[in-house]
Amino acid sequence: MELLVLIHLLRAALESGDFSELADKLADTHPADLAAALAEFSPAHQWQLLTQCPLARQAEIFVYLPLEQQVQLAHSISRARFTPLIRQMSSDERADLFNKFSDEQKQALLPALAQAERDDILSLSSYSEGTAGAIMSSDYAMLSPHLTVSEAIEVLRHEAPDKETIYLSYVVDEKRALIGALSLRELILAPASALVDDVMKHDPIQVTADSSQEEVAALIARYDLLAIPVVNQQGQLVGIVTHDDAMDVAAAEATEDFHKTATIGKLEGSVKDAKISLLYRKRVVWLVVLVFGNIFSGAGLALFEQVISQHIALLFFLPLLIASSGNAGAQSGTLMVRALATGDVKLRDWGKMLGKEVLIASLLGLTMAAAVSGLGFLRGGADISVVVAATMLLVVMIGSLIGLSLPFLLSRFGMDPATASGPLITSIADVAGVVIYFSIASWYLELVL
Amino acid sequence: MELLVLIHLLRAALESGDFSELADKLADTHPADLAAALAEFSPAHQWQLLTQCPLARQAEIFVYLPLEQQVQLAHSISRARFTPLIRQMSSDERADLFNKFSDEQKQALLPALAQAERDDILSLSSYSEGTAGAIMSSDYAMLSPHLTVSEAIEVLRHEAPDKETIYLSYVVDEKRALIGALSLRELILAPASALVDDVMKHDPIQVTADSSQEEVAALIARYDLLAIPVVNQQGQLVGIVTHDDAMDVAAAEATEDFHKTATIGKLEGSVKDAKISLLYRKRVVWLVVLVFGNIFSGAGLALFEQVISQHIALLFFLPLLIASSGNAGAQSGTLMVRALATGDVKLRDWGKMLGKEVLIASLLGLTMAAAVSGLGFLRGGADISVVVAATMLLVVMIGSLIGLSLPFLLSRFGMDPATASGPLITSIADVAGVVIYFSIASWYLELVL
Repeated sequence: MELLVLIHLLRAALESGDFSELADKLADTHPADLAAALAEFSPAHQWQLLTQCPLARQAEIFVYLPLEQQVQLAHSISRARFTPLIRQMSSDERADLFNKFSDEQKQALLPALAQAERDDILSLSSYSEGTAGAIMSSDYAMLSPHLTVSEAIEVLRHEAPDKETIYLSYVVDEKRALIGALSLRELILAPASALVDDVMKHDPIQVTADSSQEEVAALIARYDLLAIPVVNQQGQLVGIVTHDDAMDVAAAEATEDFHKTATIGKLEGSVKDAKISLLYRKRVVWLVVLVFGNIFSGAGLALFEQVISQHIALLFFLPLLIASSGNAGAQSGTLMVRALATGDVKLRDWGKMLGKEVLIASLLGLTMAAAVSGLGFLRGGADISVVVAATMLLVVMIGSLIGLSLPFLLSRFGMDPATASGPLITSIADVAGVVIYFSIASWYLELVL
Repeated sequence: MELLVLIHLLRAALESGDFSELADKLADTHPADLAAALAEFSPAHQWQLLTQCPLARQAEIFVYLPLEQQVQLAHSISRARFTPLIRQMSSDERADLFNKFSDEQKQALLPALAQAERDDILSLSSYSEGTAGAIMSSDYAMLSPHLTVSEAIEVLRHEAPDKETIYLSYVVDEKRALIGALSLRELILAPASALVDDVMKHDPIQVTADSSQEEVAALIARYDLLAIPVVNQQGQLVGIVTHDDAMDVAAAEATEDFHKTATIGKLEGSVKDAKISLLYRKRVVWLVVLVFGNIFSGAGLALFEQVISQHIALLFFLPLLIASSGNAGAQSGTLMVRALATGDVKLRDWGKMLGKEVLIASLLGLTMAAAVSGLGFLRGGADISVVVAATMLLVVMIGSLIGLSLPFLLSRFGMDPATASGPLITSIADVAGVVIYFSIASWYLELVL
C-alpha cells in the first residue's frame, strides 16, 4: 500500500475513533511500511494505533521505527504499558533501545523483567559500538550433537517462534563451546535417525564478539551466509549476526566512507532529519583545517609575486593546472580508498599499484599536456606553451601518486584510509602545483627571454 | 585455512601428482576460499585441481572464480569436458558466464544441453544488464495453492538439492501467476493438513524482471528479505533474487557511486587486476572535460589582471578562498548524493533541504570568514581583511548551495545524481569564487583607496 494512502487510513481511524476495519485492511501490510506511516504521527497517536494490533505484531512494527522515535515513544508511556512490548522485541533490537535509555529509565525497566531477560539485555548492551557484539542477537537456535536429525527438527519446530532464524542451527558441547553448524536444508535432507554430530559441518566460519562489524559484514558477503555465529574469548557461542543486519552495516559503512571522502565527520541516522547544529559541527572542522592547509598555496603564490607580475598571463593557466593535479589525485585516491574498503586491494599491494599508477599517470599527464599546450600557444605563445605543458605533465603525475599513496600510508599507520579525502588530496596537490608551475616558469622564462 | 597455506598445499599436490590426501584436507574448506587459491594457478592447473572433486563441488568452487577466469577456463578445455560442469552450475551464474562467451562458443555449447537447460540459459541471458532479470535465478521452489502443508514440505524436501533456497517458496496458479509466498518456518509451524492457500501470505513483495537492480537491493534491505520473487509483465513468476546477490549489487552500486564522485567512469571487476589501458580510459575523459571547465576560472583571473597587478597581495588568499568554496560544495554535494542513493532524501525534499542548507552554509561561512579575517588583517591590513572575509562568507554559501542543488537537478532530469562529483562542483565553485573575490576587491578597494 502507498505510504500516503496508509497515513490517510490511519489518520481517518484516529479521527473517527473506529479501528474495527483497520486490522483487516492492514493484515498484509509489511511492518516496515506500517512503521514508515506511524513515524508521521505523534507518540500518543503512535501508541494508540500500535495497541490496536496483537502484542507480537506491535513489536514487529515498533522495531522498524527510527531508534530516536522508539526512545520517544518509550518515554511517553508508562513503564507498565511499555514493559510487555519490550519483552516481545527481538534481543538485538531491545539491547539497542536499552542503550539509548537514560540511567533512570534503565533502572526503572530492569526490575520489571524476568532474570533471564535482564541478563540478556545487560550482556548484549555491554559490547562497544562497532563490534559484532553490539549487533548480534541472542535468539539463535542451538542444538546438542547427540540429538538425532528428527529430534533436532522437533526442537527447531518448537523453538521457531522465538528465534531470529531456524534455517541455521549451531551445535555446542556441554560447555557451550561452538563445535558445528547445520542448515535446516541439510537437516531435512539427512536420514531421520542420523546424529547431528555426523551431519553437521565442523568448525564453522565464526567471529568473536569484539570483531569489527565491517569484518562481520565482509565475511557474510564473501561466504554468502544467512548468519554468522559469534563466540566469546573462550569459544562459547554468545550470539549470531544475520544477513539483514550485515547489509545494514555495509550500507552504513559505505555512507560513512562517502562522507569522509568529502571531509564530513561521522553522522548517525538520517541526513534529512539531522539537526542544523549537528550538520554544522560535522562539517566545520575540516573546512577550517583545510583553510590553514591552503595558506601554503597562498604562500607559494606570494613567493612568486615577482614572476607573476612580470608574466601576468601565467595566471590564466593557474586554475586549470592546479585543478587537474587535484582531480587526478582525487581519482587515484578514491580508487584506492574504495578498493581497500572492499578488500579488492590489500596493504601489501602498494608496490604493484604504485607501478601501475606511474604508467597510468604518465599517460594521463601526456594527454593533458597535449590538451593544454595548444591552449598555451594560442594564449601566450610558444614559451608559455612549453611551460604549461611541462607543468601539466608533472602535476598530474605528482597529484596521482599522492592520491594513490596517501590511503596506503594512512592504512599503514592504523588510520582509516577514507581520511585521504578528495579535499585533503586536492589541498596537498594545490601547493605542489603552485610551486612546480612557477618554478618551471621562472626558470624557463628567464632562460629563454 | 590461510590462503597461502592452501596455495602451498595445492601446488605440492600438483608437483607430486598425488591428490589422494587433498580431498580429506579440503573437505571443510569453503568453496570461496578454494576458488581464491585456485585463482593463482594457470587454467590447465585449475582444471586439474578442480577435477579432483565431485562434479557438484566443482561447480560450487568454479562459480566463486572471477568471471574472467571462468571464461578463460571454459576456453581452455574441450566442450565435452566442460558441458557437465556448466549443467551443474546454478542458473544465474551459468547465464552470467554464457553472456561472456563468444557467439561461436555459444553456438557450440547450446546443442550439448537439454532443451530445458537451453531455454533457461537463453531466457536468463536475454535480460539487459542492470535489471532484476540479469541477476535472478530460475532455481526457485514453486508450490501449488492446493497442496497440504505436509505435501508441500515433501515437495521441498524432494527439490531441495536443486534449488537456490527452500526457505522461501512461491505459490503460483495454473497460469504460473504469482499469488503468494510462504516461508519454510511458516510451513513447519502450520498444521500438517492445512492448505498452502490458507497459510501463505497473499500478494508478496515482488519486482518485475525489468526493475533496476538497485531497486531490488533496496527492497530486500528495507524488508529484510531472504529473497524476492521476480515476475514478468503478465505477473508470471520467472525467477528470484536472493539476499546474497542483493548484497553484491548494493556493494557494486556503492563502488560505482564512489568512483563517480571522483569522476571515474564505470569500472567492472577488480581495480587491482584492471588493465592500465582500461583505467586510463575511465579516468581521462572527465580530466580533460574539467580542464576546459577550468578555463573559465582562468578567464576570470585574466579579466581582473589589472586589479591583481595593483594589489598582488590579493593572490595570497586566492587558493584558500576558492578551495573553501569547493570544499563546502563537495560536502553538501556528497551528503545529498549519498542520501538520494540510500533513499534517505527524496526529490520532493529539495525545498526542505535547501532551507536547512542556507542556515548551515551561513553558519559555516561566518565561521570561515572569522577565521580568515584575522589572517587578512595580519597580511594585508584592514581593507584586505574586509574583502577576504566578505568573499569567504559569500563563496562558502554559494559553493554549498551549488553542491546541494546539483544532485537534485541531475536527478530531476533523470540523470544519476552521483555525476555531481566533487571535482565538477569544485570547478563550478572555482569560477564563482574567482569572479566574486575580484569583483568585491575591485569595488571595495576602489571605494576606500
